Amino acid sequence: MDQLDEETKKKFQNLTQLGQSLELLSQQKLQIDSTIRETEMALEELEKASPDTVVYKQVGGILVKSERNKLLDEKKSDKETLNMRSNTLAQKIERTKSTFENMQKSLQADLQNQ
Amino acid sequence: MDQLDEETKKKFQNLTQLGQSLELLSQQKLQIDSTIRETEMALEELEKASPDTVVYKQVGGILVKSERNKLLDEKKSDKETLNMRSNTLAQKIERTKSTFENMQKSLQADLQNQ
Amino acid sequence: MDQLDEETKKKFQNLTQLGQSLELLSQQKLQIDSTIRETEMALEELEKASPDTVVYKQVGGILVKSERNKLLDEKKSDKETLNMRSNTLAQKIERTKSTFENMQKSLQADLQNQ
Amino acid sequence: MDQLDEETKKKFQNLTQLGQSLELLSQQKLQIDSTIRETEMALEELEKASPDTVVYKQVGGILVKSERNKLLDEKKSDKETLNMRSNTLAQKIERTKSTFENMQKSLQADLQNQ
Repeated sequence: MDQLDEETKKKFQNLTQLGQSLELLSQQKLQIDSTIRETEMALEELEKASPDTVVYKQVGGILVKSERNKLLDEKKSDKETLNMRSNTLAQKIERTKSTFENMQKSLQADLQNQ
Repeated sequence: MDQLDEETKKKFQNLTQLGQSLELLSQQKLQIDSTIRETEMALEELEKASPDTVVYKQVGGILVKSERNKLLDEKKSDKETLNMRSNTLAQKIERTKSTFENMQKSLQADLQNQ
Repeated sequence: MDQLDEETKKKFQNLTQLGQSLELLSQQKLQIDSTIRETEMALEELEKASPDTVVYKQVGGILVKSERNKLLDEKKSDKETLNMRSNTLAQKIERTKSTFENMQKSLQADLQNQ
Repeated sequence: MDQLDEETKKKFQNLTQLGQSLELLSQQKLQIDSTIRETEMALEELEKASPDTVVYKQVGGILVKSERNKLLDEKKSDKETLNMRSNTLAQKIERTKSTFENMQKSLQADLQNQ
């Protein structure tokens, strides 16, 4: 590392940071996609249930009695919000990946010219 | 590493990849086996309960009222599916392990001949 | 490392320990802040519910029927306790960070003088 | 490592394995102690509740209606079993730690005599 010029060192640091960002974004997307699948399973159960089925909402260590139609609306809205966030993350990942690959090529060119 | 010939390097890379696959498959099996144990505990509770016991299904942050016999069937079917997946993974792990060990021996032979 | 004098080695060890403490404290704060957010979501649901809504408390693998007003008080008190712990941790993190940075500068000065 | 004699190498390997065992045992104890705390919180709620309070048992993605006195007995028995396991682990950890420290000293003596 000591023999590299300043600009190449900087590129190397940026590349490392981009790699870490990519990993973080991928983890966030995995988690949101898993919540989407759980929300879809909840929706499936609610859609199979009749409107007067007893349902509860579970949050922060408590259960509160609710209504099937109300929870159905809530979970549909949750799913939309989560889908939007997942798509935004997918775009961010795509852009970061492309920047990463360009910087990687540029760095490789630098290293071959030294 | 620089002194190894191309074929040996390739074997080394394949061995590393196989090791990572093995670890991933083992983690997946651990998780499925843990879900099987939880499903068996649910089945046990349902079998002890009378057919008219109040039961709920828990999914994606909601609870939906169900029936003991219905949940019993569902959990039995879940258990079968999970058992099949666990067995498939066990076979995959066995095959990957055997390939790993053969490649390891071949690599050791290569290294001793260099 | 072998060429460093005893005092510099000690500073290096202290710096490493402080770095580990900082990481641990940050993880604890993240976890408490996540519990605060969950508690706030529970409070929100309870505040929207009428006083006679059926509610349950969920703890250690069981559900116990409770009352909306009782759980509302409990969760408000939980939130206060959690907020105090989060603030105490924030102060500890701030102080540890400041000690870390001072020791880092002192160590850098030592290394340049050797 | 290459200059060490066979016996010292073996001691080193055993020491590493003991260290890994210690870490694993400590993690298992942490997890059991956390389940004990949760079981104690469940017991506390059940003890405060009147015998006719509606309670549910939560297991493997379902809720089954139960009775306060029945769950109280079950959770007391759970707590005893968990306490025994925690104590057994504490003893195992103590013994492993002592073996680890003896082997560490023996290894240090070997290294100084080489």
